[in-house]
Amino acid sequence: ATVMLCGWRAAGAKLRWDVSVRGLRSMTTLPEQQQPQEPHRPGPSWMKNSGRERLVVLGSGWAAYRIIRDIDIEKYDLTVVSPRNHFLFTPLLPSTTVGTLEFRGIIEPIRTARSRLNYVQFSCTEIDEEKQQIFCESFYDHGETKIKENIKLRYDKLVIAVGAQSGTFGVEGVEDHCYFLKQLSDARLIRNRILECFERASSPRVSDEKKRQILSFAVVGGGPTSIEFAASLHDFCAKDVVKWYPELYPFVSITVVEAGPKVLSAFEDSLSQYCQKQYKKQNIEIRTNISVKKVNEDSMELSDGSILPFGCGVWSAGNTPVPLLTSLPFEKQGGRLVVDEYLRVGGRTNIFSAGDCCVVKDNVLPPTAQVAEQQGKTIAKNLNSSSISPSVVPPMRRFKFHYRGMFAYTGEFSALLDSPFGTTKGFISWLLYVGTYLTKLVSIRNKIMIPMYWFKSFVFGRDISKF
Amino acid sequence: ATVMLCGWRAAGAKLRWDVSVRGLRSMTTLPEQQQPQEPHRPGPSWMKNSGRERLVVLGSGWAAYRIIRDIDIEKYDLTVVSPRNHFLFTPLLPSTTVGTLEFRGIIEPIRTARSRLNYVQFSCTEIDEEKQQIFCESFYDHGETKIKENIKLRYDKLVIAVGAQSGTFGVEGVEDHCYFLKQLSDARLIRNRILECFERASSPRVSDEKKRQILSFAVVGGGPTSIEFAASLHDFCAKDVVKWYPELYPFVSITVVEAGPKVLSAFEDSLSQYCQKQYKKQNIEIRTNISVKKVNEDSMELSDGSILPFGCGVWSAGNTPVPLLTSLPFEKQGGRLVVDEYLRVGGRTNIFSAGDCCVVKDNVLPPTAQVAEQQGKTIAKNLNSSSISPSVVPPMRRFKFHYRGMFAYTGEFSALLDSPFGTTKGFISWLLYVGTYLTKLVSIRNKIMIPMYWFKSFVFGRDISKF
Repeated sequence: ATVMLCGWRAAGAKLRWDVSVRGLRSMTTLPEQQQPQEPHRPGPSWMKNSGRERLVVLGSGWAAYRIIRDIDIEKYDLTVVSPRNHFLFTPLLPSTTVGTLEFRGIIEPIRTARSRLNYVQFSCTEIDEEKQQIFCESFYDHGETKIKENIKLRYDKLVIAVGAQSGTFGVEGVEDHCYFLKQLSDARLIRNRILECFERASSPRVSDEKKRQILSFAVVGGGPTSIEFAASLHDFCAKDVVKWYPELYPFVSITVVEAGPKVLSAFEDSLSQYCQKQYKKQNIEIRTNISVKKVNEDSMELSDGSILPFGCGVWSAGNTPVPLLTSLPFEKQGGRLVVDEYLRVGGRTNIFSAGDCCVVKDNVLPPTAQVAEQQGKTIAKNLNSSSISPSVVPPMRRFKFHYRGMFAYTGEFSALLDSPFGTTKGFISWLLYVGTYLTKLVSIRNKIMIPMYWFKSFVFGRDISKF
Repeated sequence: ATVMLCGWRAAGAKLRWDVSVRGLRSMTTLPEQQQPQEPHRPGPSWMKNSGRERLVVLGSGWAAYRIIRDIDIEKYDLTVVSPRNHFLFTPLLPSTTVGTLEFRGIIEPIRTARSRLNYVQFSCTEIDEEKQQIFCESFYDHGETKIKENIKLRYDKLVIAVGAQSGTFGVEGVEDHCYFLKQLSDARLIRNRILECFERASSPRVSDEKKRQILSFAVVGGGPTSIEFAASLHDFCAKDVVKWYPELYPFVSITVVEAGPKVLSAFEDSLSQYCQKQYKKQNIEIRTNISVKKVNEDSMELSDGSILPFGCGVWSAGNTPVPLLTSLPFEKQGGRLVVDEYLRVGGRTNIFSAGDCCVVKDNVLPPTAQVAEQQGKTIAKNLNSSSISPSVVPPMRRFKFHYRGMFAYTGEFSALLDSPFGTTKGFISWLLYVGTYLTKLVSIRNKIMIPMYWFKSFVFGRDISKF
């Protein structure tokens, strides 16, 4: 794809930072000498000077979405900056890769989260603390070309909730030959790839050996995402492949490669063991204490010297910071922003951070949706109760993480539940898993659609169309 | 994307045509001197010699799908050859471009159409009549690279139902800058592009003029697909854009460009006029007697000398034959195979054709789903009643087209119905449209899902997430 730089006013010419619309004065910086050239026109509130404090939230994940939903919109002029225009209900992402759920059942558009919010499909690249403004860029899809655009936005309060990206940890070939499993677009690629593997393997001239390679699914990482992906894939094979590609079923293999001594290390030991047992029954091979040295086009070189051939490789081995964080001048730990107990960054009173991109000082928590959401909640509460007048300082809440428990789906209507009240596993946990996530889903739309999709794939099987 | 040639047995090396699996003997040609190297193994029936006549169907559209569903599987060893592994319910395709319906609600996988059929994801490139075999090739997606594969298949009876592809009619720039609307993947691209246009236009630094360009939707062609796409897009704008991008709504324009004197020329005159009136009300501009001379990156040059700027261009101006047809030695008319009243190609008794790729001698019919399906039905009936013994010739049915009427959706819960019993328009027609298509939908799954999707978009609006 060609990358084309252009300002809107002078396509192809040198990028121009000038903004000549009066309405933008409130949010974007204007050279003082420049005169507004166009009359004021209706637009989102951030084009006008609303009189409210300007709150800019970077990101559209769990932390950001919680803030968006909880913030007092009478008090703040809210602008959300994120390249992804929807919130993704990540715990259900693995089951969309095989069509147990359909993609659009697990997302919520940011714009529809509430009225009177402003959203721009941009990524923040730089923060100018002195002028209280951020620089953003966007690459709009325009067919084969991408159109680059830049804006500046002013803020009074800023929340950095940009999350993290999938980390390759320097392993060669991962980006070229593996799929990540982080966004919905990843899930769509994986779904098409899985189906393509079965179509390829069913072609008449394929040898048994080649079939085994094409139908080898390699999953790197032993966290919940990998484990649930492997489980969903097994469900798909055991229920649908066996029906529509019966001759291929014996050639399918699923392998989970984990560098540590066990999978689901965040879960209680008995659950992790149950998972291993369950997977053994399902013929999913778990290889622990083994790391990937290099990924080739259709095989992985492992640390024990063996070669793992694959037709579809999924890489979900952990997170790494997004580029923005690297450029920020604040204290970091493992690349993540260090925040205080009020989730403030670098001691600033107007910059906060939440979610996977930050770490609370002396209180390192796992990068989970639960932590992110609770942090978002704390920030929203503190912002809602804060005063615009500098002389009045209301008491702020300290962030305290309340562990509510976590699930992992382990295939064939079984799940694990690790909770502060104890652990359960098997079918009962699966029922709790279904019930909990149905409750947690945000919109009524998805609360209706998700059970429909479950019903559909249970009764009619998963769709094997590839497009 | 790189194209890589490789045989399965010698990746990257010269393409090898040899097949060394005993089971393939029945369908694929084996050099006589070659010995089978692997034992027989279970597989689809076409890997064995089933004793039944080998029927090969090329395509997975309306005609092919009808044959697949109707053919007597006790009598024929059926193999379907098509690059698309699903049947697409084309009349509802336009409404998926804006999310009124979800993509997977209007497709049926070929493999699940019935048991005991064989499917290969290949395109036929050549027919060898003498040896009664076809040559096929496939380009499998393998990440960035494409893997080319070749096979030969033997047939006793062959049905060519490969359809047609979108035609550009030599207009420069169409393929680079416009979207076709023929497959589900096209609809997905269009949906993302529409949403990207709104996100781009809502960016703070965009001038009014640029907004008008980005939000100009140009639709080329005045057939039902174009008309229904324009109507669906209008619905989306009037219901969802107005809600989530209110400041952009005044900048939206939809233009339909048609080279002929009227749109929907296949419909009765009063209906075509009603459509024009309805569209005027909906602010959709219809420009007839105007053709497109050239398509640039963001504008079209029209035959009256004017320039039509666009942010999203959809090209649905008619069909052109697929490459296979060009290479076939049979009589053609406008690039389509000429068939006799029994739908036989070139007087052969074992090669048939149906759908958009053929034209019945002295009886030219429009390239519609209805014609294709009825032709498929006739072929299936004749094949089912034909005898394998050459001495017994049962009477064959002549193909006779029964016009059952046709719909066009014209937006805001209105539709047109042109039928042999008269015409209706407006809301009543829309109810008939909904009812008819629900009846025509193939699977129970889709008969459940489609009303759900209609309900969802009616109650909750269309999803504006882009991924």
